[in-house]
Amino acid sequence: MDAISVIRTKRDRGELTDAQIDWVIDAYTRGDVADEQMAALAMAILLNGMNPHEISRWTDAMIRSGERMDFSSLPLPTADKHSTGGVGDKITLPLAPLVAACGAAVPQLSGRGLGHTGGTLDKLESIPGWRALLSTDEMMQTLRDCGAVICAAGDGLAPADKKLYALRDVTGTVEAIPLIASSIMSKKIAEGTGALVLDVKVGSGAFMKDLADARELASTMVALGKAAGVDTRALLTDMSVPLGLTAGNALEVRESVEVLAGGGPADVVELTLALAREMLAAAGVHGKDPADALRDGSAMDHWRRMITAQGGDPDAALPVAGEQQVVTAPSSGVLTGLDAYAVGVCAWRLGAGRARKEDPVQAGAGVEIHAKPGATVTQGQPLLTLHTDTPERFDYALEALTDALTIAPPTTPFTPVPLILDRIA
Amino acid sequence: MDAISVIRTKRDRGELTDAQIDWVIDAYTRGDVADEQMAALAMAILLNGMNPHEISRWTDAMIRSGERMDFSSLPLPTADKHSTGGVGDKITLPLAPLVAACGAAVPQLSGRGLGHTGGTLDKLESIPGWRALLSTDEMMQTLRDCGAVICAAGDGLAPADKKLYALRDVTGTVEAIPLIASSIMSKKIAEGTGALVLDVKVGSGAFMKDLADARELASTMVALGKAAGVDTRALLTDMSVPLGLTAGNALEVRESVEVLAGGGPADVVELTLALAREMLAAAGVHGKDPADALRDGSAMDHWRRMITAQGGDPDAALPVAGEQQVVTAPSSGVLTGLDAYAVGVCAWRLGAGRARKEDPVQAGAGVEIHAKPGATVTQGQPLLTLHTDTPERFDYALEALTDALTIAPPTTPFTPVPLILDRIA
Repeated sequence: MDAISVIRTKRDRGELTDAQIDWVIDAYTRGDVADEQMAALAMAILLNGMNPHEISRWTDAMIRSGERMDFSSLPLPTADKHSTGGVGDKITLPLAPLVAACGAAVPQLSGRGLGHTGGTLDKLESIPGWRALLSTDEMMQTLRDCGAVICAAGDGLAPADKKLYALRDVTGTVEAIPLIASSIMSKKIAEGTGALVLDVKVGSGAFMKDLADARELASTMVALGKAAGVDTRALLTDMSVPLGLTAGNALEVRESVEVLAGGGPADVVELTLALAREMLAAAGVHGKDPADALRDGSAMDHWRRMITAQGGDPDAALPVAGEQQVVTAPSSGVLTGLDAYAVGVCAWRLGAGRARKEDPVQAGAGVEIHAKPGATVTQGQPLLTLHTDTPERFDYALEALTDALTIAPPTTPFTPVPLILDRIA
Repeated sequence: MDAISVIRTKRDRGELTDAQIDWVIDAYTRGDVADEQMAALAMAILLNGMNPHEISRWTDAMIRSGERMDFSSLPLPTADKHSTGGVGDKITLPLAPLVAACGAAVPQLSGRGLGHTGGTLDKLESIPGWRALLSTDEMMQTLRDCGAVICAAGDGLAPADKKLYALRDVTGTVEAIPLIASSIMSKKIAEGTGALVLDVKVGSGAFMKDLADARELASTMVALGKAAGVDTRALLTDMSVPLGLTAGNALEVRESVEVLAGGGPADVVELTLALAREMLAAAGVHGKDPADALRDGSAMDHWRRMITAQGGDPDAALPVAGEQQVVTAPSSGVLTGLDAYAVGVCAWRLGAGRARKEDPVQAGAGVEIHAKPGATVTQGQPLLTLHTDTPERFDYALEALTDALTIAPPTTPFTPVPLILDRIA
């Protein structure tokens, strides 16, 4: 077996054999297949595709490259959620304690943000004292005590994926559905959850701009999960507009706590409940309506225990950025568009995100949204407030908003895009 | 400008701009574009192609990555030949002194063999004392004194191509016509010849198995040469059968000297003369028939001076391998096939070629051919003699010959494949 013959097979539109896939993933993890060889193979896969059997074997080989977690000692069924990433997507924060309050255990291994979408761990780290890095024992203990844990995934899970993901990032080979699906699912299956709900985002602020592509990605991932014995389902949800009214770390924590307190923006509540119901059904937990758990304070109670268990102070004041700048409506009329990608890039440039893996993020930076599409606005009315500790970034951040806002004449009819576009199970 | 945006352009079937091509070749040569990024780009080029303008700019950027030679101080016009590589292709050896004897200067910068095709320098190094590595001054002096020089290309010519070629070799991206054409032509144009004749091989023992592909490669290269002011023409020649009766370093030198002495196998003589006539016409040299220069000893005289100028002894005995093994005809009939690739691999395994760049070659190893297709053979008659200094390789070398020989019943009509399949100018 050698790398060139594997590359040639895919280059010439052939099907990779199980032995070729097993060998190339293992040899790449060990360093016997060079980065340039895997890059050529990744480009061939991007352009020539993989069939379902190849994708499944590829995923399995990445899982076998590392260790697998095991939650079978827990008394509760486990359920996990994965979002393909969007702007203002803080759903994991209220969702994990909410599902825990309804009787499923939620081992939520999360990542950090890169580019214009935020990362769950970055958001939670704006809570004073909160730690993302737990040992396996600490993680299991938190899960037992609080029903939910949100922490960093250990380095031992799917190391082949970690290496391949970093390579794809610099070689223009990110946008390949077989590679995206196997990357996500290898990590999620290795994490050992019994049920998994995927939130596949569609729109300008998402990876997938197109509903057909998103549907293909979702179907591919659902099939991979089921084949591995994980009850997997997916919602396709809109990401043409930011979720909720905030994009930024501490800003999103504040909004999440509002949802847990029974308030919060309608879209965040709607998606949190929809995902919670899917997770509970997939985990086989019936009888408790998550809406009740938001109302009766049990979700908030689980949140406070979970944050406390990881060293955080749920009552501490959240960081606030030192400088603000308001963006007002340039004309009166109906706000018909608020581009998710533009808002994401703006928040990123304000300091909420990082350009390189090793960069720090600003806890207080981000964008507050005062009007969402459908709203009637008056010229001069505040539409956005930008937050940063580094005001020299305002101009660059504002540039991102050039075409972000669309205001139509006052009587223009407005049809909202549904938040949940499709469901695949 | 960044590597990912260049990769994405080609990945998404776009046309690379001049600025993108100039930047990526320069940045790759400097090391600012990583091997894995160039590998992904090379695969995208292989699968999505480049148009003539892109290929021309790519070639030009590779030429500009290094120095160019200048033969304008020579009193004679220059002509060069390049073969895409075949089995038993020793043509450069008799051709260079032959063309010199007819009045054109032949600065033949050559390479070493890798894989199943031999390298001109490896062949000449079997002559005791002969040196491939000359300084620019030594090269110019030999060219002035002998009319021809065959030596290693300096490291300063098209360094981008050197780096890219090594990368393509390990990433399954060799077989891309735009990359093959620009690789060959960037070196040949940088070498500064005034006229160039390409011998594009077609068949099992060649890079191009298919006449249509070979024609496309030839046309692409001829256009690149002409655009750079080099009078360029191509012959498409058969490589389904080895050229001549030897494949191996010293064995091929012996056969070349036979041709220079007015003998040698008919196919080697035919191709040598055809290429010599093209080179002389392209260089604008008229009046001398190369066939006369073989007959009257003037080509041999140039050979002896050229070999001597580079430290070689044209009268020294050539190395002979320590061990021989004869392959006989398994049945009687008409030999209808002698597969070039199989003979090439066999010679390579006997020690005539190298598996890795740093491996040495055996001067005496190789295959002697006693019957070519069209011959009537009798069961038990010797068809091939294998030569090696490492007899433990015989079995492995013989394996390569499993399907190499085709013997049809005695009365089977046989139609020979023409040696010269097409001409592109």
